[in-house]
This record gives sequence, C-alpha cells and structure tokens, in this order.
Amino acid sequence: MHTPPDKIGMTKLDDTLKLRRLGIDTHQEAVIYMHRDCHICRSEGFSSHVRVQVTIGDETILATVNLVEGNLLSPNEASLSEIAWRRLSAREGGAVTVEHPHPLDSLSRMRAKVYGHRLGDGELAAIMHDIVAGSYSDIHLSSFITACAATGLDHAEIVGLTRAMVGVGERLDWGSSVIVDKHCVGGLPGNRTTPIVVAIMAASGLTMPKTSSRAITSPAGTADMMEVLAPVDLDIIAMRRVVESEGGCVVWGGSVSLSPADDTLIRVERALDLDSEGQLVASVLSKKVAAGSSTLVIDMPVGPTAKVRSDIEAERLANNLISVSKAVGLNTKVLWTDGTQPVGRGIGPALEAFDVLAVLRGSRDAPVDLRERALDLAGVLLELASAARSGAGREMARCALDTGAAWRKFQAICEAQGGMRLPMRAAQQLPIHAEVSGRVVSVDNRRLAMAAKLAGAPESKAAGIEFRASLGAEIENGDALFVLHADSVGEIAYADEYIKSHSPIVGIERSS
Amino acid sequence: MHTPPDKIGMTKLDDTLKLRRLGIDTHQEAVIYMHRDCHICRSEGFSSHVRVQVTIGDETILATVNLVEGNLLSPNEASLSEIAWRRLSAREGGAVTVEHPHPLDSLSRMRAKVYGHRLGDGELAAIMHDIVAGSYSDIHLSSFITACAATGLDHAEIVGLTRAMVGVGERLDWGSSVIVDKHCVGGLPGNRTTPIVVAIMAASGLTMPKTSSRAITSPAGTADMMEVLAPVDLDIIAMRRVVESEGGCVVWGGSVSLSPADDTLIRVERALDLDSEGQLVASVLSKKVAAGSSTLVIDMPVGPTAKVRSDIEAERLANNLISVSKAVGLNTKVLWTDGTQPVGRGIGPALEAFDVLAVLRGSRDAPVDLRERALDLAGVLLELASAARSGAGREMARCALDTGAAWRKFQAICEAQGGMRLPMRAAQQLPIHAEVSGRVVSVDNRRLAMAAKLAGAPESKAAGIEFRASLGAEIENGDALFVLHADSVGEIAYADEYIKSHSPIVGIERSS
Repeated sequence: MHTPPDKIGMTKLDDTLKLRRLGIDTHQEAVIYMHRDCHICRSEGFSSHVRVQVTIGDETILATVNLVEGNLLSPNEASLSEIAWRRLSAREGGAVTVEHPHPLDSLSRMRAKVYGHRLGDGELAAIMHDIVAGSYSDIHLSSFITACAATGLDHAEIVGLTRAMVGVGERLDWGSSVIVDKHCVGGLPGNRTTPIVVAIMAASGLTMPKTSSRAITSPAGTADMMEVLAPVDLDIIAMRRVVESEGGCVVWGGSVSLSPADDTLIRVERALDLDSEGQLVASVLSKKVAAGSSTLVIDMPVGPTAKVRSDIEAERLANNLISVSKAVGLNTKVLWTDGTQPVGRGIGPALEAFDVLAVLRGSRDAPVDLRERALDLAGVLLELASAARSGAGREMARCALDTGAAWRKFQAICEAQGGMRLPMRAAQQLPIHAEVSGRVVSVDNRRLAMAAKLAGAPESKAAGIEFRASLGAEIENGDALFVLHADSVGEIAYADEYIKSHSPIVGIERSS
Repeated sequence: MHTPPDKIGMTKLDDTLKLRRLGIDTHQEAVIYMHRDCHICRSEGFSSHVRVQVTIGDETILATVNLVEGNLLSPNEASLSEIAWRRLSAREGGAVTVEHPHPLDSLSRMRAKVYGHRLGDGELAAIMHDIVAGSYSDIHLSSFITACAATGLDHAEIVGLTRAMVGVGERLDWGSSVIVDKHCVGGLPGNRTTPIVVAIMAASGLTMPKTSSRAITSPAGTADMMEVLAPVDLDIIAMRRVVESEGGCVVWGGSVSLSPADDTLIRVERALDLDSEGQLVASVLSKKVAAGSSTLVIDMPVGPTAKVRSDIEAERLANNLISVSKAVGLNTKVLWTDGTQPVGRGIGPALEAFDVLAVLRGSRDAPVDLRERALDLAGVLLELASAARSGAGREMARCALDTGAAWRKFQAICEAQGGMRLPMRAAQQLPIHAEVSGRVVSVDNRRLAMAAKLAGAPESKAAGIEFRASLGAEIENGDALFVLHADSVGEIAYADEYIKSHSPIVGIERSS
C-alpha cells in the first residue's frame, strides 16, 4: 500500500514544536531538548542521542536529541542549546521543525579513512563543508581527528585538506603582493615573539596582518597573550582598518572566521590533547592562505620535550611545510630554533605579556633569549620579503627595536585594536623550591606547560608560571625554581599536586 | 606565599551545590548543569565542556559541564543528566560536590596507541576501568575506538582487551564444565538462528545460558528480536533461575552487566557505524568468557556485502577468533556460511520472530535456509560438546526439531523468562516493486539493512523489511521485491527515499 500524499502532508504540518529557551550552554555541540512524550519523538522514533535535522525558517542544522522528563518542557515544546539557538536565530515561542536527517555521505568517506583509504580533494571538501555546517557530532569529529592522526595524511591529502579548510571560510585580500606572516610550531612555553616581530615589520614599512590562534594544548596561544594587552576579537572590517592605518595587527583568527573548520577541529583536538602532523600543517597553512599572506617564516623549536623532539622529525615537518606551502602558493622559510627550555620567564597569557613589553621597551631586565629569537625571525622575514638584502635583515630588525620604532608601532597597533591595557597579576602565588643545590641540566617543557594549564592558563589570564631556572644556572637548595600563579587556591593546589607527583620538572646536577 | 591550610579547608566546605532534578536524558554521557554565576564555577574556573569530578556521598564520577543562564537553576543549585543522577544515587535537594578531576593517566596510553604504540595488558585494564567508571567522555571513547580500528590490535592486544573487558564486569559460574554457546559474526540480515539452536541444545540436555546483544550497526540484534517473544532484560538471578529450570535462555547481555565496558564502546561504535576486527573479537569472546561458556560455535557468513567479504578476510578473522579463544580457555569452532543474501524472509525484530516461530513449529512455509543453517550450527555444537559422536550431530539436532521437542522447550524458556508473547505487525507497509522481469542475481545486504534501519528497526520492533527476492528467483515486472514495514509514514518515506537513491538493492538480470 502506497502512503497517500495527503497523509504525508498532514504529518509535515505536525512536525513543529514551540521554542522555549532554557539557556543551556553545551559549548559547540548543537543539542535539541524535547519531551519524552512529544508527538514527533513518538511518530518519528527519536530517542536520546540520535541526530536530527532542526529547521527554523531557512536555517537548518543537525543536532543531538536529549529527551526530557517531568515538567521542564511540555510535550509540544522544544529547547535548543545556546550554540544551536544562535545558529538558527531562534526566538522564544517561535516554531521549530524536527525531522530525520539526510544520511551524511561524507561520514562514509571518513570511515574509509579509518580503514586506511586515502581522502581525495572532493571528499575532504565535503567533510569540511559538513563540519562547518555543524553536521558532525563530537563523536564524529573525534573519529576524524583520530583517524587522520593514526593513519597519517600524505602530501596530496594535506594539500587537499589545506585547500578545503580555506574553501569553507573567508579569504582576505590586502591589495598588495607582499604580505608577511610568521608562525611558531608550538610546544615551547613562553615563546611569544609574534607581537615583537609584527611591531618590527610594521615599523619597517611591511604589511603584517597577523591572525593568531588561541591555545590548543598549551597554556597560552598568541591570541590569549595579546588579549591581555589589547582587544583581539576584531571582525574583518575592524582588522582591515587597523592594518590600513598601522601596517600590522595581532588579532584572534577565530573571530574573523578565516578557518571555521579548523576552529571546530581544534576544540576537539584540545579535549583529546592530540594534534597530528598533517592536521598541523593544514591548520597552519590554511590560516595563512586565508589571511592573504604571501611570505612566511616558521619558527620550529627542536628539543627533547618540545613539540618537535628530534632532527628527523624536524626534517620531515620542515619538508612537509615547505612542500605544501609551494602547492598553495606561499613563499615559506622554516627556522630551526632551540627547543630545550622555555623562552623568556613567563608561561601563561599575562606573564608572557610582561616579557613582551620588556623586550619592546628595551628594559634592562628584558629576557635576552626572547629578544634574540624575535630578531632572528624578523631578520629572515625582512630578507624573504626583499625589504633587506641578503645578510642584512637582522641588523635592520635590531635598529627598529633599539631605536624604539617597534615599541611606538606596537602601542599604536594596540590603540588601533581598541585600546592598550596593562597585564594583571594573579591573586595566588606559590613558589616551587629546589631541594638540592647544583646546576640546572634539564627542563621538562611539557610538564611545565601542564602545570601552568592546571593553574588555570589560558582561561585565567593571570595564571601560569614564572620560570627562574634556565639551563646552566647555579641553584641553591631552597631557591625558587619557578612560581605558580593562579586566581584561586583550588587551582594552585591542583597544579602543586601535579608537580609533586611528576618531579623533577627541573633537573639539577648536584654540586660536587 | 604558601596557601594556609585553613584557607584550603574553607574552600572545601564551599564545594557543594544543592541538587535539582531537571530530568534531561543525555543517553550514557554524564553531564552536570551549573549556573554560569555559580561560585564553584567562578572560583575553580569551570566553563562549558570541561570535565569535572562530581561526588555524592561515597560515589564519584567524571562529568561534562554544561553552564546554564537565566532561571533554570539558581547559582547555588546543580542538576545532573539522568544517567549521572542514577549512577550517583542522587536525590532532590541533596548535596553534590564538584571539583577538578585527577588527570586520567590512561588517556595518555590511549594517545600513544593513536601514534602506533602497542597497548599492554595493564594499560588495557586501566582504560577499561576508566571507561566503566564513566571517566571517558564521548570524544575520548570515539578516539579509542577509532585508534584501535585504524592502527589495528595484534594478538596479544586482543587477548589483553578480552581479559580487561571480562575483568571489569560480572562473571558467571554454572557449576558445570560444559556450557555451550554460539555467536554469529553479523552483517547478514535476518540470520536469526540463535533461538532455534538454544531450543535444540536445551531439548538435548545441554546447558546453553545465552546472552545476546542488541543491534550495533544492524537493524536487529538477537536480543531485539527475542524481546518480541519474551522479556530479555533479566538480571543474573532471574537468568540463573531460567537456566536451572529449562537448561537454556536467550537474554540481553547488557542487563546482566557481563561486559559493561563493551556496552559503552558499542554505543559509540553505533554512532560511528564502525566496528573493527580486534574489537569485534574481544567483544564477542569477552562476553562468552564472562557468561561462563566453555564450548562455542561461531557462524561466519561470507559474501560480497556481508560483514566478512572475502575468503582472505574470513581466514584471518577465523584464525583470530580461534587463537584468542585458546588463550582465554574457550573451545571454539568457526563455521563459514553463505553470506550472499539475507536468511529467512524477515529483517527487523518482529519480522524475524515470525520466521523463527515458523521453523520451530515446523510450519509448511518456514524458511528452509534458516532451518538448515540452524541445524548445521546445532550439529557442530552437539559434537563439539561431545553430546553426539563425530558426524552424528546434525541428525540429532534434526530429531530434536522435527519431534517438536525444541518447540516445546522454546515455549517453556519464553514462559520462564517472563511469559511468551506474539509478534506485532507494523501500521505502515510499502511494497518496493521490480521494474523489469528477470532473474535475481545479487542482493546488497548492507543497503537492505540500512533501509530497514531507516524504517525504524530495531527501535521500532515491528519495523523492517519483508524480503521476497531470493538469489535465482524469477521475477516479473511489478512483483514486490520486498515490503517496507514501519510505525509511521515519516519513517516509510525516509526509507523509501534512501532506496530510490541507492538502487538497485536487488540486482535482476533481464530475461532474454
């Protein structure tokens, strides 16, 4: 028996529920709350955890069902998690339609990847499209990230992923052929050269519209740190105004939607504490292409507890970055740098901001390692962009810094981004003392970063670690090796507990 | 400055919120709802999506934070998703403590697996322990499943995973050395031999306490089908009573907690539509060991659209099942069977139950293929358990079936499980017609199964497909190849749309 068309029509009319805002924030996951006795759930067979297609007006998203018992909602009402409410521009009392979703073809491509098949350009584009549309649940996103990490991405896949990420976001055009950019392959706490390099470049007449990320698995991203000194969540119009007036900026990439697919993936990578080489390359380079950059220097710290641990890894990653750069039209140079210990003294947004200000101001106590590294990178970039002749880049950068030109430019950029402000100090501080005398011979960057995160960084801007035990330093029993900073005693206690059970974070060779 | 101990003490006193039940069902994921202005969130820096440790009395679980705005909760209140409410035995108005969780060490082992390291026995045990404790979020579970599927599990890992799964659940002891069991490696719609084999075994004086699973990625598991005929969610005491009186049972494995880790993993595998060989072997064999079985026959259908598609795959999986069986003390035989088309006529819980009843009753129109397959499996099992001499097992099984002994035993088992009942028919039916005349030369089991799922199986018991186009059958243009059954017109339309866009599901060679 064929179902008569009018019966289908009747059902369609019944597919709506009345919206009520419960105000539940599920972060990025779209959830629809419906009553267990709701007629749509009964007729369509929806149970908790299934994925459904939710429509308000012209906007449609996929969401996960959470059924509700009792009187939180009536059977003819539905609610949406805050992210879904915003994406659908929902309003209190409005109508919402809930249906079975169309099968997501890109999920079967993702499954093929799990079983070792390659992903073609079209498949990657379809996956990124569905991710940006919010059609992947956290379970799907986690599987995609894990599959890519476990089976690896080859050159063509990374190029395809990079282009797919660019394809689903906005792409900037600065009307100039040379746009300089820098990136640091993370893993080294406190390595905050970006604001210094941007200031030097802009002071030298180059254009550097820098978009930076927030932390993935580290205690601070450049955007987290910069936010201490100036607003960073500028939209594209505001960002363009800053760059047109000052030649440079340091803003958060997420708020200009340059790579919305990457932002979603990064959220899940953070929960998994996992980021793989292929995704790292695509993530970095897609943001550069989308930002309209032409010329890029990459700081790649190498050390036993940095993200890149060995020369073999460094070689492979550098080749990967260079070859994918070529394929997507970027002129890129990778600089291998020291990754054996933190750079500067601060680890965490505000503590790193103090270091950056000291270097820019030319303070007597400014961290030398941070200054030297910023000059190295700025020098390479000036030469790569043909602003300095070969071999003269570093000296040009030094002049911009030592004459105060970079510091003035930095202040102007902060003002243009919405007003400069000064870093805050955390309410709670706890020094971690040496228990022997001797010489510092090793620093575990990863555990130091973990302790800073447990202290609350980067969510708590002032939280983190003030590091005082550089490699080679002579330490007395009882000296503070580093100081924990946190907003609450709970976070201090949590970080302290971790440090005690994961000692030594700083390796000391006893004096003989 | 060290934090004074009394200050820590004060904070501890403040760590509680008052419980209010909102009745939100998030399926298996533990969620805690707190107000954005709650003092704990502020002091501890909790934001939406972070994982926290939630304690009521002596019970502690990890949960994901969802912050709430508005007046759903007051700042000193918290709510829990239904699964968390039950796990913690929460009560309205009671106190709940929320703290930072201890870092989960097993997560770093899981990450190592993503990067290709092997998992040792202790690591697998730790991961299963944390999964059963509810400490893994959906993101973590998805990553574990994907990592195992993508990098594979070697023999020792599968043995370790099997033992780890057994270790975290209950384990039955029947006080007898020979306990028979069977399993089917899925992928073949309608292949519902289990109730028939159990009836034959029990009628032949053997003990077969069968625990079955619900569907993972198929339109019905044996437990879903059996539930149409009798209650299957028996606890261990009730199950033991049935087996002691009747010698056999067919109950749902999940309700006797034989493999709680596996139940959790299966939920996420279902959302991913992914189950890998290593996990399949561990999942199957851990349930057998936990159920106290000694002697096992495995039905392994092989065919181009079955789960096992080629002889090479079949060989590898059979070897895997046999070698892991030996390591965990099971006497196992694997039977390769025809996997080219569905077995019987029904696909979906109730439709399959009709087929099973027809075979047991010896009805004239009973599906021959289902009957023959059940006799093959029962024959092997009788010999493996030394109840029949070599070569005489099949004849012994046939006698038990044809004398009505098995049918009488099946009715007794259903009554003992809580009362026998008859299958229901779906409200909506839609035949799918042949559009040419000719001979059936291929059947796509996977798409047939997908269509049955889209029609509502297994959640809707009566939903599914009645299959009428066996390989080799001569079909006239306009004949019904199969009939869709569903509870609602929406589900019929959804399945029909899928069939139309994925034709041909049944391949017909035109008559010349």
